[in-house]
Formats: sequence, structure tokens, C-alpha cells
Amino acid sequence: MNAKRLSERMSPRTIERLAVYRRVLAGLLGQGLEHIYSHQLAELIGLTSAQVRRDIMTIGYVATSKKGYDVGELLEKIDGILSPKEATHIALVGVGNLGRAILSYFNHQHSALRIVAAFDADENRVDRVIAGCRCHPMKDMEGKIREENIEVGIITVPDWSAQEVADALVAAGVKGILNFAPVPVRVPDYVYVDRIDITTAIEKIVYFISEGDKAGGE
Amino acid sequence: MNAKRLSERMSPRTIERLAVYRRVLAGLLGQGLEHIYSHQLAELIGLTSAQVRRDIMTIGYVATSKKGYDVGELLEKIDGILSPKEATHIALVGVGNLGRAILSYFNHQHSALRIVAAFDADENRVDRVIAGCRCHPMKDMEGKIREENIEVGIITVPDWSAQEVADALVAAGVKGILNFAPVPVRVPDYVYVDRIDITTAIEKIVYFISEGDKAGGE
Repeated sequence: MNAKRLSERMSPRTIERLAVYRRVLAGLLGQGLEHIYSHQLAELIGLTSAQVRRDIMTIGYVATSKKGYDVGELLEKIDGILSPKEATHIALVGVGNLGRAILSYFNHQHSALRIVAAFDADENRVDRVIAGCRCHPMKDMEGKIREENIEVGIITVPDWSAQEVADALVAAGVKGILNFAPVPVRVPDYVYVDRIDITTAIEKIVYFISEGDKAGGE
Repeated sequence: MNAKRLSERMSPRTIERLAVYRRVLAGLLGQGLEHIYSHQLAELIGLTSAQVRRDIMTIGYVATSKKGYDVGELLEKIDGILSPKEATHIALVGVGNLGRAILSYFNHQHSALRIVAAFDADENRVDRVIAGCRCHPMKDMEGKIREENIEVGIITVPDWSAQEVADALVAAGVKGILNFAPVPVRVPDYVYVDRIDITTAIEKIVYFISEGDKAGGE
């Protein structure tokens, strides 16, 4: 398929924007909107219309109507690029406050992406169902990941054990990692890793707004 | 103070790294470690030693011992730069799964950053204490934010109401926003905004690992 081949050259930023378009378009379709102009979509998402038109041209979609893009068709096109044919199985390691939150948040949002197993070092948290997900002891991790064909690992453990957990996930054959620990983890090149650091994000905001105060007050 | 003046020229990336150094150093100090070399700190965090030395020089700290940096002194120095003198008051808007998670995660982590009020449009969630935080109706937002001197807002509402909530936060005088909704929000230049999009992060990982499969299989 042409769009698939094109998509192989796409950058992480483009993929991020396509994921956002998809969510916004699905919402609009749910509200009964059938067509949308690039400038309207741009306005909703806070991008320029040129950016939106460029992205949509990249995926090989052409508006066939003077009323703009057909919302349903465009959604289908983006879906074909972003969505894997089979559900992606995900493991989450570290079932503290944040881990639980992500379990309940995520398992309510998605059907194609499923957190199928959780792991924790604390024996009070294992062999139970937490936020809809079975939690196993760490020693079972490698076996479970192979058995359940898990491809992505989410790390929500304290920073001091993040590297150890990443190593274990990689050894078990995981190909992508989303790390919520506030410290980067080192993985081989063939593993795709991304990091979300909530605490640092807030600390950064606090720093910059207090710098703003000082600049303003002087 | 010299370090303070230097810090006014620091980039968001430097501030992010300082926040990470601080967390790692606090952990090491807790374990009784008194000194650390730049290459050890670099190794722990996954940076180059040159980067670590540059950052620490930027904040005006000089190692006085052949045993490397004094962990306690360095921690204090970074603290002086990152930490506001008074606790920063934060509001969280949208007490769904993710909002609750952030409330319980955050209010266990920090003393200098406090989520002092939560808001929600659902009347079943308001006038209650959720995850240790009082939840108020949306109509009380502006008044509460002024009354409690809240400077930062965390947005954990669905994407279709994120912009409206951002507008209300800005109107109430908030100076920084952390947006978890999967759509960017538009704010005036004097407001510092950052975005964390968990769903898109996972979708991106899934896209890139499945692209990897295809490349490998062809």
C-alpha cells in the first residue's frame, strides 16, 4: 500500500501529530461532523494550516470535496498507518501510585493497545488483580513476556531500579519501552525508548515561572 | 547570589538535567554516599561526563576534594537554584483516572510543590476529598485560584475541554500549565506551558516497533 510505504520515512514528530489528528477527527466524527478544512483542523490542534496540509499530503490523502477533507475517510487513512493489525501487548513494571493510575487510565482508553501483565517487587502487590490487570512477581517477568508475546514495557518503578528493570525487559525480548522513572535508561539501539518525567516537568515549570517573577520585579 | 544570576540564562534542557541530578544525588546521600566523581554521576544518569561537568560548572559549583563532588554540598547548590523559597501552589483540573493518579502520586513525592485544589465538571466528584485533595466545582475555579495563590495548573481533562480549561486557568492568573490532554492548548506568551501526552507516546512506540518488524522482515 502506498501510504504504508510513505509512512516508513516518517519522523517521530509526524507520527505524534498523526496520532493527535486521529483523536481529534474521531471526536468530530462522533459529533456528526462529515467534512473539515485544513485551517479548521489546524485551529483545533494549534498548528498552522500549512503543517496540516503537508502532513496529510505525506500520508497520500487528497480531499475530493470542496467542503474540505472527508472526516471518516481521513480517519481511516490515518488508522491504516498508525494501527498495528493485531493488538499490541504491553507490560507495566512497578504498581505504585503512578503504575496503578496508568493501568486504570490506559485500560479504559484503548482496545488495540493492551496492558496484559503487571509486575512488582513488593510481594504484597503480586498474585492479585490491580486496576484490572494481573500483577506478577519480578521473577516471572521473562517467562510471562515471552508467553504473552509482549512487545512494549512501561517502567513505573523508582529511579534507582529503572535500569535493572529496563535490562530485564530487553533480555526478555521487549522492543519498545516507555520510561516514567525520572532517570534515563540505557538500552541497545534496536530498542525504541521514550521517557515521560512528570516530576521534572513540574519542577521546570516552577523554575521558569519564578524566573519570570524575578525578571518582572527587577 | 551568583548562582542565581547565572541560572537566569539556563535553558529548559539544563533545568531538566539539574532536576534529575538533584533526585539522584538525594538518593545517593540517603544511602550514605559522601562524594561522587563526574563520570560516576554521568554513568548513573546516562549522560557524558563532559555534560555533567559543564552543567555543574554552569551553576558555579567547584569540587574541593580529590574524591570528587561533595554530594551534600552539590545537592544544596542545585536546591538553591531550582527550589522556590515558598511552596508552589498547584491546581489540578479533571479528576478522572489520570487526575486521581497524579494527585496521589504527586502529593506523596513533594513538599515544596503542593496540589492544593482540584476541580471537576462532574458534580459527583465535587465537594469531596479525592486522593487527599479537596475537589471543587468548575465555577469556583477563578476564586479559589486567587484565594490560594495558585501559580501552576495541571490539566487532566478530555481533549475537547482542554482549551476551555486553559483559558479559565489563564484568566484566573495561573502562570504555568502542564497539559496532559492529547491536544495542545493555546496560551498567551507570558504563560509557560508544557505537555505530556501518554497515549501518543505509546502509539508512537508501537508505530516504530512495528515499522522495525517490517523492515526486518522484508
